[in-house]
Amino acid sequence: MDITQYIRDIKDFPKEGVVFKDITPLLLSPTATRQVVKEFILMLKDQKIDKVVGMESRGFFFATLLAQELNAGFIPVRKPNKLPHTKIQEKYELEYGFDTLEMHSDAIAPGDKILIHDDVLATGGTAEAVCKLVERLGGEIVQLNFLMELGFLNGRNKLRSYDVRSLVTY
Amino acid sequence: MDITQYIRDIKDFPKEGVVFKDITPLLLSPTATRQVVKEFILMLKDQKIDKVVGMESRGFFFATLLAQELNAGFIPVRKPNKLPHTKIQEKYELEYGFDTLEMHSDAIAPGDKILIHDDVLATGGTAEAVCKLVERLGGEIVQLNFLMELGFLNGRNKLRSYDVRSLVTY
Repeated sequence: MDITQYIRDIKDFPKEGVVFKDITPLLLSPTATRQVVKEFILMLKDQKIDKVVGMESRGFFFATLLAQELNAGFIPVRKPNKLPHTKIQEKYELEYGFDTLEMHSDAIAPGDKILIHDDVLATGGTAEAVCKLVERLGGEIVQLNFLMELGFLNGRNKLRSYDVRSLVTY
Repeated sequence: MDITQYIRDIKDFPKEGVVFKDITPLLLSPTATRQVVKEFILMLKDQKIDKVVGMESRGFFFATLLAQELNAGFIPVRKPNKLPHTKIQEKYELEYGFDTLEMHSDAIAPGDKILIHDDVLATGGTAEAVCKLVERLGGEIVQLNFLMELGFLNGRNKLRSYDVRSLVTY
């Protein structure tokens, strides 16, 4: 199955000149969704995972599915003021300005084997911030996986010390 | 399994006087998560579902899992300016002011059997707006299910023509 058939290009979204990769057709197909989960699992090569971290909001779609498939816990990383309990945060740079991500402090125990998932690897700023959150809590990052990688943005360069996988590279 | 053991009360969140029901401990337990999915499936009593609609963001967690379990498509309902393709929207009333939800126009085909899921049924405003979105596209609402229902807010009153289920009522 060629999953790129389930990802559509939306020109000039969210702003002029940008081609947005829309995964909602993929989510509408239970068969294609199942296939994506299967391919992510294969990439892990039977490495044990205790918890899967997913980034708000589109990272949640596959992170919850991966967690169940791996019999692992699911941890949401969220934008500021969404998580209600004691938490840690990381600021990261955007094209213009900064943004912040948060994770509950009790989500990870030292030594937990962690899989990080998001839909897109772009500049790598978000993923780098999530790696910091996980490691501050003592988690061991086994792999980061992405549905799509925008190769021309070189996000991998920020993640050199990790095993970074993508299903589709543009 | 008593799933309320996996839901913790957070006092004064998001504002003073409110007790927030935090489901992140539930998501951290793959066993409890699996049990919740199983109980939701039982509530459907073998009725056919073509697509599961989940509300941004916490509704995404179980809606994706339910969709896979039912071999159904998953449709995200999102806040404004997040969905990239042609869409419809519904405005709904909040305690102070209004909010808007959006759904892709091609997400539902006339006659599709729809399950709507969210984490919490509170005043019912969000759920009512989602029902309108689904029906404007010709979908048939089979059931709405919620992890938690805040019974004292009487959200059910806005949803009288539907089959509304909750796993836990507070």
